[in-house]
Amino acid sequence: MIVIQNMVRIDKRLAEPVYLQLSNGIANVIQQGHLKPGTALPSSRKLAEFFDIHRKTVIAAFDELQAMGWVEAQPRKGLFVASTLPVAKARAVAPVKISGAYPETTAYAVDTHQYVFDRPFSPRRERIVINDGFPDTRLAPVDLLVREYRRFSNYRFTSKFLSYGPAQGSENLRSELARFLNTTRGMNITPANVLITKGSQLAIYLVSQVLLKKGDEVIVAEPGYTGGTELFKYAGAGVNFVPVDADGMDTGAVEKICKKKKIRLLFVIPHHHQPTTVTLCAERRVQLLELARKYEFAILEDDYDFDFHYASSPILPLASVDFCGNVIYVGSFAKTIAPAIRIGFLVAPVNLVEQATWLRKMVDRQGEQLMEEAMANLLRNGDIDRHLKKANKVYHERRDHLCSLLRSELGGLVEFEVPAGGFAVWARFGDRQLASISAAAARLGLGLTTGHDYWHLPANRINAARLGFASLNEKEMEEAMGLLRKAVHAV
Amino acid sequence: MIVIQNMVRIDKRLAEPVYLQLSNGIANVIQQGHLKPGTALPSSRKLAEFFDIHRKTVIAAFDELQAMGWVEAQPRKGLFVASTLPVAKARAVAPVKISGAYPETTAYAVDTHQYVFDRPFSPRRERIVINDGFPDTRLAPVDLLVREYRRFSNYRFTSKFLSYGPAQGSENLRSELARFLNTTRGMNITPANVLITKGSQLAIYLVSQVLLKKGDEVIVAEPGYTGGTELFKYAGAGVNFVPVDADGMDTGAVEKICKKKKIRLLFVIPHHHQPTTVTLCAERRVQLLELARKYEFAILEDDYDFDFHYASSPILPLASVDFCGNVIYVGSFAKTIAPAIRIGFLVAPVNLVEQATWLRKMVDRQGEQLMEEAMANLLRNGDIDRHLKKANKVYHERRDHLCSLLRSELGGLVEFEVPAGGFAVWARFGDRQLASISAAAARLGLGLTTGHDYWHLPANRINAARLGFASLNEKEMEEAMGLLRKAVHAV
Repeated sequence: MIVIQNMVRIDKRLAEPVYLQLSNGIANVIQQGHLKPGTALPSSRKLAEFFDIHRKTVIAAFDELQAMGWVEAQPRKGLFVASTLPVAKARAVAPVKISGAYPETTAYAVDTHQYVFDRPFSPRRERIVINDGFPDTRLAPVDLLVREYRRFSNYRFTSKFLSYGPAQGSENLRSELARFLNTTRGMNITPANVLITKGSQLAIYLVSQVLLKKGDEVIVAEPGYTGGTELFKYAGAGVNFVPVDADGMDTGAVEKICKKKKIRLLFVIPHHHQPTTVTLCAERRVQLLELARKYEFAILEDDYDFDFHYASSPILPLASVDFCGNVIYVGSFAKTIAPAIRIGFLVAPVNLVEQATWLRKMVDRQGEQLMEEAMANLLRNGDIDRHLKKANKVYHERRDHLCSLLRSELGGLVEFEVPAGGFAVWARFGDRQLASISAAAARLGLGLTTGHDYWHLPANRINAARLGFASLNEKEMEEAMGLLRKAVHAV
Repeated sequence: MIVIQNMVRIDKRLAEPVYLQLSNGIANVIQQGHLKPGTALPSSRKLAEFFDIHRKTVIAAFDELQAMGWVEAQPRKGLFVASTLPVAKARAVAPVKISGAYPETTAYAVDTHQYVFDRPFSPRRERIVINDGFPDTRLAPVDLLVREYRRFSNYRFTSKFLSYGPAQGSENLRSELARFLNTTRGMNITPANVLITKGSQLAIYLVSQVLLKKGDEVIVAEPGYTGGTELFKYAGAGVNFVPVDADGMDTGAVEKICKKKKIRLLFVIPHHHQPTTVTLCAERRVQLLELARKYEFAILEDDYDFDFHYASSPILPLASVDFCGNVIYVGSFAKTIAPAIRIGFLVAPVNLVEQATWLRKMVDRQGEQLMEEAMANLLRNGDIDRHLKKANKVYHERRDHLCSLLRSELGGLVEFEVPAGGFAVWARFGDRQLASISAAAARLGLGLTTGHDYWHLPANRINAARLGFASLNEKEMEEAMGLLRKAVHAV
């Protein structure tokens, strides 16, 4: 009794429940050898009195100790410290364990040049950051997500989702997504056409691994999404570049390449091209589909920001008029809600979905079931739709505010067009080196891209940056543009 | 007013909040064209009276409608249907959209033979299932997980975790895991040695892709974890088999192969070999480490069930005495808590962790941050430790119960040894064909493996099955063994 009184501390203000504080405390006393196996525990009444807590709380702590094996009950005698303690008395592998440091490098050779990128792992540390065009996590409906997770406390509901699940993703989510895409994108798919992925990244990775072999040829836009191009190269493909103008990817240039070599895959972001934000016009969409049929290549359509359009009514995706099976459609809630909501999707004819699903099973077996089920409910309830509509309104205002600030604060210093949608303005700084502007901005506490990621070939680089407006509120945006003006003037 | 009264239904018994029922209802009326742009909305007082709800509820619905852009306020006049509705009036790509069906197959060729497995996607549908040895999801501390998710409602806490995060995984979780592994496994690592993965599957996939090239040679046990072997083959490696006896993998056979060819990687499950449940003895562990140093290969140590040992004190993992950097250590909470808790980890010297992290970034960019942060807290609070201790006690009892049922119900029909830990008993059925027993069991409503997955080479197959005891309670186990006896007798 005395040793428990001396060593165990109960603090009712802590988040940890009192019964767990008590059971953990007593377990520690036992583990440290202060209460030997076979010793009788004090009665619940005595402990309750001493710690000034309810006797039921002490009994809950005793139950916990018994469940964990620290104490055992003897009929009509009470509780005693267990004769065999539930402590891992692990044996070392060698008779004498040499207490060495963990090795700094491997004993076998590791090729440290197979994956080399110039992008840092860590997020920017500046006080205020103009990002590349991410959604504002402060608008994310986390409370609704948490509401869905609370339902998982109900065992009857949860047990199914805690076991292994389908590699293709939650059936509920695939149904809701098919409905959502058919309604919003004019598509005509069934849940069998949908594979749930981890963000659009896994979707592009799977497609590139399933479709591309060493020596295959791929077409991408320059400038473009170099993160996708890395995956095509990693799969062994050769990469061909076509320019982008005010109407999007140059389809004439696409056909020229097709006439010279067999193309396996074309990657396109039609809604708002990354990085320039231009929209692929309807005429070129039809041309791309015709070229794909004629030259028998696959179109990988990355439509990450379809849900955000401000100016005019959006043109539907290529996938909505793909009646021959040339288009693979990819999207993600990581891009529309918050980067951590890593629910992406791949839409394609069943024979491709099946192969991608097999590979997915090899890579990481299945998705995050609890998150998938939560998202299925949020889609069904209309919560996602409501969130997107609200966010669309906010981002529309932020786009307008950024464009007016660019005119008032940086007039004559930047060129830009007002984007029809999405999260960013494509701003050109003329002869001023973007790398120098970025460095000057960093000194002022403003994070700004160096723009290197936008270009495959350094020779093509111009001094242009995506200025993300979606995650900056009015005040932050004004501060950021003030700092950006100073940074540009400093160059 | 009349159209809203006629078309909108409020039902206070529904889970959907009343204010959302009202705002969604009104939004529908507007979208369907029954209230034209510019029409005045009825006052909140009138709507509150008609629907018999609080006026504040109506005002909340109005706020929602305004936020979504369905209505707009005119100062001192009230609310009006918005002049521009927030509805996507999407334009079709082609002037006349042909309303075609979605294509059944791709227009381009897809190799449907690159990933072929004989395992089904879908879970077993029998009334009662003897699985391969999974944890009981009914014991999983879902309430604690949900408690952690509730903290995410607090924006200040959450914002950071909703943005993009480190590809190597949550810093908090890597710290807690390093501490956890050092304490429980006698390791001596820092968070820089840890990469958080999605289950052990992604860890093994990354290692195989980073280390193996076409023509490399790998050693695995036969029988063994064929799911791992698939990944080595997919990476282009040749596979060499060594037998397993009562002391685990045959190290003599390992050395014989090493003398003949250059080995790049050896895969071993030392704690309880999959499928036979035998423990690799200490002497052979030392031998394996010596062979790895001598022949310069990497050891991939899959230690998925270390936390569950019943009979004796466990031998520490090979990684605990790896002072030269030969061992890559892999584990997962999917195996110890619930399959849906897909937090796995890879532990290795920094140069390998870095390469695996780069590849991970290409594959799916990052892990599930919210789940990672929740698990970090559960580890820090000691909740995981408490759960493992409790589950250990329950599984210990279930192992004993299964073994006694095997003796009483199936005496003379099966051979087995009592496993020292883990989740399953390795039961041999002699000359009776396991496939026939499995088929007979299915007819009785009992799910049982055909055992094909355990063997790389069909010629090696014996009639043996893993009988998972961890996820069956006493009553279920008795029923399952009763059915199994009938099934064996039927063959």
